[in-house]
Amino acid sequence: MCSSGMADEALFEFLHMEIVSHVYKEQQSGKGEMDNKDRAVCVSVLEGMGFRVGQGLIERLTRDSPSFKDELDIMKFICKDFWTKVFRRQIDNLRTNHQGTYVLQDNKFALLTQLSSGKQYLEQAPKYLAFSCGMVRGALSNIGLDSVVTAEVSVMPSCKFQVVVQKL
Amino acid sequence: MCSSGMADEALFEFLHMEIVSHVYKEQQSGKGEMDNKDRAVCVSVLEGMGFRVGQGLIERLTRDSPSFKDELDIMKFICKDFWTKVFRRQIDNLRTNHQGTYVLQDNKFALLTQLSSGKQYLEQAPKYLAFSCGMVRGALSNIGLDSVVTAEVSVMPSCKFQVVVQKL
Repeated sequence: MCSSGMADEALFEFLHMEIVSHVYKEQQSGKGEMDNKDRAVCVSVLEGMGFRVGQGLIERLTRDSPSFKDELDIMKFICKDFWTKVFRRQIDNLRTNHQGTYVLQDNKFALLTQLSSGKQYLEQAPKYLAFSCGMVRGALSNIGLDSVVTAEVSVMPSCKFQVVVQKL
Repeated sequence: MCSSGMADEALFEFLHMEIVSHVYKEQQSGKGEMDNKDRAVCVSVLEGMGFRVGQGLIERLTRDSPSFKDELDIMKFICKDFWTKVFRRQIDNLRTNHQGTYVLQDNKFALLTQLSSGKQYLEQAPKYLAFSCGMVRGALSNIGLDSVVTAEVSVMPSCKFQVVVQKL
């Protein structure tokens, strides 16, 4: 039996929303406003959770996969197989400078589509990207690639993830 | 295209595990051991997150559904459609006293299958049930039923959820 996927997607999105709001609420509790340091703590907590989830997921996904040819081959796997499993769509565009930097563009990023496209939400966007950055970093780490992963939004709900692979 | 569902299931399970461990870690931080009050706070936080996720999910699931005939009809919907969307299987057994109490038995509860079946894990089981209890309560609440939802494990990974509908 093939499930529609709609409510499953929703399950991940709702759960992610709850985590984000919980982590920010707990960091803020008792304080008036959050400062940059508070926000950095939240981003780091969410990134860490994403990292572990990404590690676990890629382990299942690559269990029966042949080994990868090269770094680009790994990145393509992340853009297609990994992204589809998590976000139900492939990355729209992958670019690289062939020196270890990759830009993955998702024109309709699932975790942003629930946010409105107003300017005040654009400012909020980074808090909804930390978990996913961690997830990509965790997945890559499990395949043996250390990386730094960041993300930026210019026009909602489009999102660019930048992966910089750390050479030994 | 029909996805296998394996990694999607895993996504929810891994995310749930991260939430549970985060909530317990933050409550414990700085203390030596957790007391019953600390544990109650954790259960309540997880239950609340589940409640909101359940509300959101049932809203999507019932959007195109005809209205329900009666209370039993609602419970059957939870056991079949709702459970399948969240846990990829139906409830194995539904019992009721026809006075507002329902027992839903899942013989292979997804959020317990990753735990080992040793006795020390049986003691840990309650912390993996709070979120799901909240989710059922949230779903029912959105259909107009106030309820108290508890869960117990006797033999892993089998689990019984008890729903007591609150009459006005």
